[in-house]
Amino acid sequence: MTGRSRLSLNTATTKGWTLREAVDGAARAGLPAVGLWRDRVAEVGVPAAAKLVRDAGVRVSSLCRGGFLTATDPHEVRAALADNRAAIAEAAALGTDVLVVVVGGLPAGDRDLAGARARVADRIADLAPVAREHGVRLALEALHPMYAADRAVLSTVEQALDLARPHPPDVVAVVVDTFHVFWDPRLAASIARAGSEGRIAAYQVCDFLLPIAPDPLLSRGMMGDGVIDFAALTRLVAATGYAGDVEVEIFNADVWATPGDEVLATMTARYRDHVLPHLDG
Amino acid sequence: MTGRSRLSLNTATTKGWTLREAVDGAARAGLPAVGLWRDRVAEVGVPAAAKLVRDAGVRVSSLCRGGFLTATDPHEVRAALADNRAAIAEAAALGTDVLVVVVGGLPAGDRDLAGARARVADRIADLAPVAREHGVRLALEALHPMYAADRAVLSTVEQALDLARPHPPDVVAVVVDTFHVFWDPRLAASIARAGSEGRIAAYQVCDFLLPIAPDPLLSRGMMGDGVIDFAALTRLVAATGYAGDVEVEIFNADVWATPGDEVLATMTARYRDHVLPHLDG
Repeated sequence: MTGRSRLSLNTATTKGWTLREAVDGAARAGLPAVGLWRDRVAEVGVPAAAKLVRDAGVRVSSLCRGGFLTATDPHEVRAALADNRAAIAEAAALGTDVLVVVVGGLPAGDRDLAGARARVADRIADLAPVAREHGVRLALEALHPMYAADRAVLSTVEQALDLARPHPPDVVAVVVDTFHVFWDPRLAASIARAGSEGRIAAYQVCDFLLPIAPDPLLSRGMMGDGVIDFAALTRLVAATGYAGDVEVEIFNADVWATPGDEVLATMTARYRDHVLPHLDG
Repeated sequence: MTGRSRLSLNTATTKGWTLREAVDGAARAGLPAVGLWRDRVAEVGVPAAAKLVRDAGVRVSSLCRGGFLTATDPHEVRAALADNRAAIAEAAALGTDVLVVVVGGLPAGDRDLAGARARVADRIADLAPVAREHGVRLALEALHPMYAADRAVLSTVEQALDLARPHPPDVVAVVVDTFHVFWDPRLAASIARAGSEGRIAAYQVCDFLLPIAPDPLLSRGMMGDGVIDFAALTRLVAATGYAGDVEVEIFNADVWATPGDEVLATMTARYRDHVLPHLDG
């Protein structure tokens, strides 16, 4: 037993690698899974990507990402729905049942968070039947509140669960990403609720670095380099019975400047030290 | 009626001004109140500051700030309590019953948010009798979650209310600062609860600018320049019956580089356009 049986490399972590390099790198490091970004998949096309992953003997833990569902303009709404339908079909073709959904921020000049959240609920309702048909879960991702206005009007796991509530848990679920949710004073209760509702579709880990990077999107770091208590968070997730993959997704200029094999070695070591010991509840 | 009867200049907004310049500038602009930072008060000492404000015919809407209550080291705990006792006495001497409290982040190397929050609750209990004795309210300020680890383990109004709950509302209350709380999906309910408990001690307004400034502390801006819906937020606060001052507190390099009188003219105009129309519920 290598201790890596649930560890997944999200392709965003090895940004300099092509899809093939990332899949081969993950396999070489003994990882059983990869989380794929759609632009990486688009390099070779969905059928070739699916074959490439299959041939490497790894599984796809998630597809990143659908979403951006807050438009008011009817043309933009239609375009967003079409794009999300395509993403759902891609996830199914790639053999994963998890489509990570980042819901989107405020339209330009708009300040109405409540209105944007209501539109997200409507779009999720539009997409849920498509997701069910393909056997794919829409995995709603709460993003850190610093992105509330421009990337995701969905800021907490609780809010994601409230959005998911009208739908079956095998159709609409949630992502727990440590970077985005560690600060939440209601986190323990929200993760427990997510577990009891059977709605934890993905557990993504990376650290929150301080000071916040000049581009705040890049303030994600290797587990142990920042302020997050991975023992506490991982135990909360494990206590729900979550048995899925643990994806490492790091946007970070220094990580991206490091050779991929070295990144994989570091993330595997950090996973062993900070996450794995707490994963069995 | 000038429409300015509740508008207060927080001295952080006119950083280049001395205490006297800020107080005189506020009076010149027809503002009835100033929010004072302790370092500004320390320029002249508390008695002289109190006289200076009195002579200018303005009131003190709040003193910023007490807090930083998360230490584990006994010496640091004692130092923090001493500093907060001094701040409470200063507030009383300056004629304000509002001491803004920023609770502090994680001690260096510590990742235990729950533990830090528990220590804050203990320190608030230590300080509450002192505050009551001086007729000063400890106004707990929830800070944006991007500061959860390094400045305030208190991230939501609801969490502030839970911390305040063991104490009478005239002793421990909360601040509503638009920048810090606008993103919160539970905000409407939390502000209503704060009102029904009689715990809104201060309403501070400034906008949230995007992209986030390289120093995220400086991403505060003039009302109307960012993403916050001041109409919606102000109506929530007004609906509680809040009748106190509205303080404008902006940390922003461009604002600081602008002559103080110009800053005051802009903030008064923005207050009239974005806040005042919604302040009477």
